[in-house]
Amino acid sequence: MDIRTIDWKNGKIKIIDQTRLPRALVYLEIGNLKELWRAIRELKVRGAPALGAAAALGVYLGIKDYPGSSRKGLARCLKKTADYLKTSRPTARNLFGGIERIEQAAARAKDITVPEIKKELFKEALRIIEDDRAACRAIGRYGAALIKNKSRVLTICNAGILATIDYGTALGVIYAAKEKGREVKVFASETRPLLQGARLSTWELYRKGVDVTLIADNTAAKLMADGEIDMVIAGADRIALNGDTANKVGTANLAIAAAYHKVPFYIASPKTTFDLSIKDGSGIRIEMRPEDEVRGIFPGTAAAPRKVKVLNPAFDITPHRLIRGIITDYGIVRPPYRDNIAGVLGKG
Amino acid sequence: MDIRTIDWKNGKIKIIDQTRLPRALVYLEIGNLKELWRAIRELKVRGAPALGAAAALGVYLGIKDYPGSSRKGLARCLKKTADYLKTSRPTARNLFGGIERIEQAAARAKDITVPEIKKELFKEALRIIEDDRAACRAIGRYGAALIKNKSRVLTICNAGILATIDYGTALGVIYAAKEKGREVKVFASETRPLLQGARLSTWELYRKGVDVTLIADNTAAKLMADGEIDMVIAGADRIALNGDTANKVGTANLAIAAAYHKVPFYIASPKTTFDLSIKDGSGIRIEMRPEDEVRGIFPGTAAAPRKVKVLNPAFDITPHRLIRGIITDYGIVRPPYRDNIAGVLGKG
Repeated sequence: MDIRTIDWKNGKIKIIDQTRLPRALVYLEIGNLKELWRAIRELKVRGAPALGAAAALGVYLGIKDYPGSSRKGLARCLKKTADYLKTSRPTARNLFGGIERIEQAAARAKDITVPEIKKELFKEALRIIEDDRAACRAIGRYGAALIKNKSRVLTICNAGILATIDYGTALGVIYAAKEKGREVKVFASETRPLLQGARLSTWELYRKGVDVTLIADNTAAKLMADGEIDMVIAGADRIALNGDTANKVGTANLAIAAAYHKVPFYIASPKTTFDLSIKDGSGIRIEMRPEDEVRGIFPGTAAAPRKVKVLNPAFDITPHRLIRGIITDYGIVRPPYRDNIAGVLGKG
Repeated sequence: MDIRTIDWKNGKIKIIDQTRLPRALVYLEIGNLKELWRAIRELKVRGAPALGAAAALGVYLGIKDYPGSSRKGLARCLKKTADYLKTSRPTARNLFGGIERIEQAAARAKDITVPEIKKELFKEALRIIEDDRAACRAIGRYGAALIKNKSRVLTICNAGILATIDYGTALGVIYAAKEKGREVKVFASETRPLLQGARLSTWELYRKGVDVTLIADNTAAKLMADGEIDMVIAGADRIALNGDTANKVGTANLAIAAAYHKVPFYIASPKTTFDLSIKDGSGIRIEMRPEDEVRGIFPGTAAAPRKVKVLNPAFDITPHRLIRGIITDYGIVRPPYRDNIAGVLGKG
């Protein structure tokens, strides 16, 4: 598997245009901030960890051609860039975390010249990318220990290669289990409205040779009732101090159905997705997306009437008590989350 | 509202082609059995009560041009027609019930001529249609008593005008509440894969002036968690003796989420959908539908890879213990269902 979701090339951010998948694997080279902002808003690049890397490179993109030699001027340019990128999407913690790491690196770079600061910030952005690659592999290692041979795992949205740099969180666990020689059968919930499960997860799982079956989101409870699912693993966009987890809308549905059928439900997520400043899920801001994503027209036959109102939240909150464990790059966090999350986040 | 889902006109069965909605309101006149079989299989006509009426008219369509005057010959023709129509779709009880009523009418028609038998069977098919119209209105009356002013009701698939002759079961309850002057806000779950909620329910609710908001199926648990849903009402395809209910896949998801959030969950269904020969949900045969319905291509961007496997059951079973009540044309059946269903079905 040679694909990489985000890279830096020829002074530009190179991403896979995820709105074109699975029909075409098209790379975009993004050379200005406005284009990056729109690529994030339109989900050409998406997935919490990938957004952290894209936003960090974006801050560098915004300051790299700053013409002066004034450190104050550069700091103002950086703040403007960072503030702008933070308006692209509200929910994923990593988007803000990536930007903040660049801001912190800038704050540390005191007694050096503007060109040297730029170089430091670029290096920090590349470190974020490498940290993501290492974090996903650590999540994979910890998570793979939960996966028995011939497990049947249900997942939602895409928390794979395409949501990270090149490995994945929830799907990273699958890939790691496979690397250990375990057979895993994955059910991919298609994830309406934007079908990241159908378009992205099946595409990358298929490429990686994983046995994957696509289902409508509506089919999850039936599969569990039929005894066809051994565990559920989902990614995360932001995890509160008490373990309440914001992820793609539909995740809470799955967690509730899993609890009802006594199927273990796990979140897989790097430390960078936790937000200790938020006490519980009620404090997480949920992005509302365009109505037309749900009116979504099928060719020839199917479309909701254009005048019909739509409610289209992009995420929901899975209550911590429905989560059996959170698979992180620092190990599996178990309840009670309030204590154990603080413990994990104290490390490293 | 002047639309009627099924009618008899010029010696043909006149139906609305529901695969064309909401883009176009197109009527089809079906003059032969094979065409009807395909219209049922392809969901041009769908919804358990509507299937009962269509199949009953279909049996008449199959025998009306029987050339001989032999009652035995007619009986053979009728059996062949009935057996053929029963292979169209397996789950909806009413499809079989409609056919069986025509068979029973034929069995009663002993000492009359072949032309007179044909006339009797036609009259029986029309009675099935009139019985459905009356049953839906009775369901509406009983159900409306559950609907407080300003209620917010979530529904799935289409259990409305388009699933019956001209009124609806779950949506019939909404229409009846509205006729009583109550404000009702409906959330229509889009109902992947074939989007009967998005295409059909929003279309007819909008035409009837009901305040309707479309959501992705994934959004249901979030809305409940936000306190935005007062009750859930779904239709049914077949109800077992213990109250276990087969309905569009995704219904069990909703019932589980409703129980978790303490939102009352109701089934609305005529007596004709109950199947006393089946002890519980495990005995209900669930139709598996074509994989391509889930791979379902969006224009331009979204499609699952064509090679990816799909699992596409059309229905699921909602366990009886998650159902607060079943709104029937004979009143609201409450738990314990095994006793109370038998009681209701003894009447009338």
